[in-house]
Amino acid sequence: MNLPGIFITIEGVEGAGKSTAIAGVAEWFGAHGREVDCTREPGGTPIAEAIRQLLLNPVEEDLVPLTELMLMFAARAQHVAGRIKPGLAAGKVVISDRFTDSSRAYQGAGRGLDRSLIETLAQAAEQGVSPDLTLLLDLPVDIGMKRAAARRGACAHDRFERERHDFFERVRAGFLELARQSSRFALIDAAAPIVDVQTQIQTVLAARFPQGGVNCG
Amino acid sequence: MNLPGIFITIEGVEGAGKSTAIAGVAEWFGAHGREVDCTREPGGTPIAEAIRQLLLNPVEEDLVPLTELMLMFAARAQHVAGRIKPGLAAGKVVISDRFTDSSRAYQGAGRGLDRSLIETLAQAAEQGVSPDLTLLLDLPVDIGMKRAAARRGACAHDRFERERHDFFERVRAGFLELARQSSRFALIDAAAPIVDVQTQIQTVLAARFPQGGVNCG
Repeated sequence: MNLPGIFITIEGVEGAGKSTAIAGVAEWFGAHGREVDCTREPGGTPIAEAIRQLLLNPVEEDLVPLTELMLMFAARAQHVAGRIKPGLAAGKVVISDRFTDSSRAYQGAGRGLDRSLIETLAQAAEQGVSPDLTLLLDLPVDIGMKRAAARRGACAHDRFERERHDFFERVRAGFLELARQSSRFALIDAAAPIVDVQTQIQTVLAARFPQGGVNCG
Repeated sequence: MNLPGIFITIEGVEGAGKSTAIAGVAEWFGAHGREVDCTREPGGTPIAEAIRQLLLNPVEEDLVPLTELMLMFAARAQHVAGRIKPGLAAGKVVISDRFTDSSRAYQGAGRGLDRSLIETLAQAAEQGVSPDLTLLLDLPVDIGMKRAAARRGACAHDRFERERHDFFERVRAGFLELARQSSRFALIDAAAPIVDVQTQIQTVLAARFPQGGVNCG
């Protein structure tokens, strides 16, 4: 879809440092004079955030994996129509903490749900929008889980963060497989010190979006 | 799917008299000694009922039709896995106020969403379960809308009940087309007096489920 903005998605397992990466991407584009909208999935609009609450804090009942998948894409359809597309149409740099690749990695590779169903849902929910760049923050699962546990501190564990090590190994492998298949991805070594991670990201951005993408967005 | 129970769905536009019909079906099977579970869509489990609240009372933001569709099927997937299948496995007669045909009629025929997407979602969400009988309560849209308006009385109008006449005409036509295509349906003249409607339904049940379906469920 030919919209004047730039759509960047940040992917990776828990503890990969997505929030810090997003802040760095936003700062880089801001320094190039671009208007930036940072958003997240599941979420990003009032209805999509309400769906997020259902997903992360189900009560009384186990959430069926298929229901989880369909809720993810329901939230995504709302997010694309209500925030991502309008942002791109207005020429913004829209940066999303997770997008369709998370469904492919978590629900597809992680939970083993049907890939063709996921792609059918993806094609419908994306409504013609696809990321111009996906930064995959990759790191060994053990390191990610330790970081995520440290970050949680006294906070309640949400359902996803209670997931097991083997599951995250499948998710990581799923992400890496996606990155191998498409030049849309840039693979970032997220096990490196934060300053090095930010340097890697800035190098990718400078290569892909000269002058902040003013002429190529 | 070969489960010992009987799955009956009740379909029709607003004001068609679904609740009264369901009570009659439940009473008929009860009189034949069958254990009955009356449920509804969207809803039927705690998570599915939470999704129903999102669907009927969205706040702050217009619900995108595609999001509506995916939320409907997310609720359905949970309903099938958490209530319909367990009920059928336990030999119950499960009677649902709406099921997949409502998505076909409302989101497909009514809102014009992609039929093949709806069928893909249906196949996934139904998880091998399909109705043994669908009672389609058919009546002219004007009569249904007048009945629904009278029933609402002082209650708040929910989003679906504010929908317009033309929309309901498309929905009715969608239901009738489905009924023409499958012997699973029984068409009930819901514009008739209530006692006649109940007689029509009992006649269908007696023909399809001799002795309450004890030997054929």
